[in-house]
Amino acid sequence: MPRAWIVSIGTELTLGQAVDTNGAWFAARLAERGFDIARHITLPDELQSIVAGLREAAENCDVIAVTGGLGPTEDDLTRAALAAAAGAELVRDAASQRQIQEYFDRVRRPMSPANVAQADLPRGASALSNTSGTAPGIWMRIGRALAFALPGVPFEAKRMYAEQIVPRLTAAFTETGGVIASRKLNCFGAGEAAIGERIRDLMQRGRNPEVGTTAQLGVIGIRINARAANLESAGRMLDEMEGELRARFGTLIFGRDDETLAATVGRLLVERRATVCTAESCTAGLAAEHLTRFAGASRFFTGGFVTYSDEAKVALLGVDPALIREKGAVSAEVARSMAAGARTRLGTTYALAITGIAGPAGGSAEKPVGLVYVAVADASAIDAHELRFPEQSPRGVIRERSVASVLNMLRQRIIVEAPSPNR
Amino acid sequence: MPRAWIVSIGTELTLGQAVDTNGAWFAARLAERGFDIARHITLPDELQSIVAGLREAAENCDVIAVTGGLGPTEDDLTRAALAAAAGAELVRDAASQRQIQEYFDRVRRPMSPANVAQADLPRGASALSNTSGTAPGIWMRIGRALAFALPGVPFEAKRMYAEQIVPRLTAAFTETGGVIASRKLNCFGAGEAAIGERIRDLMQRGRNPEVGTTAQLGVIGIRINARAANLESAGRMLDEMEGELRARFGTLIFGRDDETLAATVGRLLVERRATVCTAESCTAGLAAEHLTRFAGASRFFTGGFVTYSDEAKVALLGVDPALIREKGAVSAEVARSMAAGARTRLGTTYALAITGIAGPAGGSAEKPVGLVYVAVADASAIDAHELRFPEQSPRGVIRERSVASVLNMLRQRIIVEAPSPNR
Repeated sequence: MPRAWIVSIGTELTLGQAVDTNGAWFAARLAERGFDIARHITLPDELQSIVAGLREAAENCDVIAVTGGLGPTEDDLTRAALAAAAGAELVRDAASQRQIQEYFDRVRRPMSPANVAQADLPRGASALSNTSGTAPGIWMRIGRALAFALPGVPFEAKRMYAEQIVPRLTAAFTETGGVIASRKLNCFGAGEAAIGERIRDLMQRGRNPEVGTTAQLGVIGIRINARAANLESAGRMLDEMEGELRARFGTLIFGRDDETLAATVGRLLVERRATVCTAESCTAGLAAEHLTRFAGASRFFTGGFVTYSDEAKVALLGVDPALIREKGAVSAEVARSMAAGARTRLGTTYALAITGIAGPAGGSAEKPVGLVYVAVADASAIDAHELRFPEQSPRGVIRERSVASVLNMLRQRIIVEAPSPNR
Repeated sequence: MPRAWIVSIGTELTLGQAVDTNGAWFAARLAERGFDIARHITLPDELQSIVAGLREAAENCDVIAVTGGLGPTEDDLTRAALAAAAGAELVRDAASQRQIQEYFDRVRRPMSPANVAQADLPRGASALSNTSGTAPGIWMRIGRALAFALPGVPFEAKRMYAEQIVPRLTAAFTETGGVIASRKLNCFGAGEAAIGERIRDLMQRGRNPEVGTTAQLGVIGIRINARAANLESAGRMLDEMEGELRARFGTLIFGRDDETLAATVGRLLVERRATVCTAESCTAGLAAEHLTRFAGASRFFTGGFVTYSDEAKVALLGVDPALIREKGAVSAEVARSMAAGARTRLGTTYALAITGIAGPAGGSAEKPVGLVYVAVADASAIDAHELRFPEQSPRGVIRERSVASVLNMLRQRIIVEAPSPNR
């Protein structure tokens, strides 16, 4: 497999004032075409630093993808650095200069003298035309490696990549030995280590497809990367591995790729023509907001209550004040009563409720920060679960994980009660 | 200036399946402390690759910040790679093992055997305790460079950085030759270009302090970076520039640094012993969730209504069905009625309401996607505003900007009605 390095240029990136989304985008595109992405490096707008990084890349890989530093200002040094790394001088490209002039004519703005320097490129390099901006791209060799540089404006770079880089890469690497296709299966209800142990055999290094795990707010993603000669074969490998993982994990897996728990719940509800409403205390609307992040939520979601104070729980949901006095607002009993009250008032198939202590203040020895009760109600039953998150967890994490837990509880209830949507 | 490299580890990063936000965060923190961020490198989960990257870093900088690869699974190789790069063996740390066990006891889940390996660290290294997760961090030397590794979970890493890395860095680099101090002033109610034009003189390159703008979801941040010999001098420079900016922008500026519009509103309400409740349609709980993101929100927020369907607007808020038929659910009149209904039911000083078309479907020629009405009610008046966002805006953006707009409307109302909290 040919090796690629991604070289991202910009002091705003090295200082952490911006996140390198362009580099990630190029990496994903090159990986799809079968390149082994061996390293990304990010360099400040300093000539020596960029030249050193480019030379190191050229000694260690077959293709160098460079992003950024092609603008018209003093701190745009990619053209000069590419020339120095290749030991070539900068020369002005007449065709590029004409194209830049045409760009300014088209947008009816005067061309600044600084823009003329954007037509410079290392002797021997090819200019890549940019029809939607002022910075041409560059295609060249540095030593034995091929290098291309594209502007940092995402939509300009993406178009230039598709139209001008892909055909050149295809011509240069006719036998790259294939592609990489990826898929992610999302799980909820077990920790990353426990899931990893059950697929230790599949996660061994060097396997194809390669399997790895990621964790975010309680959702464990199992990522599959398959290398094959073409996308069809890679797709078959992904299907086979997905079958194996589904056989091992069953309903722990709730969705694929970007599907969230809320989206899964929405899909299950719509399939069954069922509806849900919410009653939230410590999460204060977050569950409702999750359930409505995608268009079409009105097919299964009608509304909800944010009952942050005890008085609101009584006034809006009919929770018995004596129950709050006796058990506390953070209790399984109050969670159940909130779910029941919401469901009655909105007439939905299901209701979910959340009450807890999201912190950082408000905890006690008996009821510490991180203690949350969640409940799911339908016509036949009201279940409540106790959740305990580490006391030091940030408020936002406790809230997000509480929402994920109650959405998963609802998902399990729907699957158990109505395994087939055609009941 | 001492030099730092950021080393980010994870195949999901090299393949471009995730964007490296942790690396950016560490870079920003180290830059604030006066380190020259010379390079970021991103490496796949491959032992030889990580070892080579760490050795290269150790030869070229004074501090290596490593993020990722400390999880419990087979593809978490940072511990082993740090040991190999330093020529040390891995040994199990008894204190870390105890702390991991305590973590699982606290969250009442069984500890998986894979988690025990997270207590391994290179001989001679110090373990950094992680009170909110299972992965301890590592502090050590590789050759002449200091290296620290923190887990990839952002909130764990951020807390560990503040509590355990900062004091160690301070002790190790007492005379770094100057600092950069930063401050951000947050504005709402004018565009980035309009704000930029009014401070063109302050934004010229090479000035100290340096002034720049950022824009996110309608909030314009004016960032000030001051370079000085020490934090005191830098702080004075920031204060002076803040005074100049406040003189130019007045109440367009709502807060500093991380203060959100919701936090500002909360502060203003608490100062005036006033309260607010919410009535939300298209934002479905997002305004309530914003208002309660920080502890102590119960001092000014009691609850709210998510009335996604027309029926919920009628049943929960008492909106007249005839009004919905006549004016439509997305109208100034219904927004006003929602605000009034919520305020009556929860007895708060203020109520805010949002109803609109967040898209991508559901728009019409008369009422396109992006049309939103917001209202603020108190005892004396109910105001409504019409907002129009570009039809192509993503659903999440329309929702966030609607919430920001109604929170700013409430902020202006509070300031005008009760300029001093001691009325």
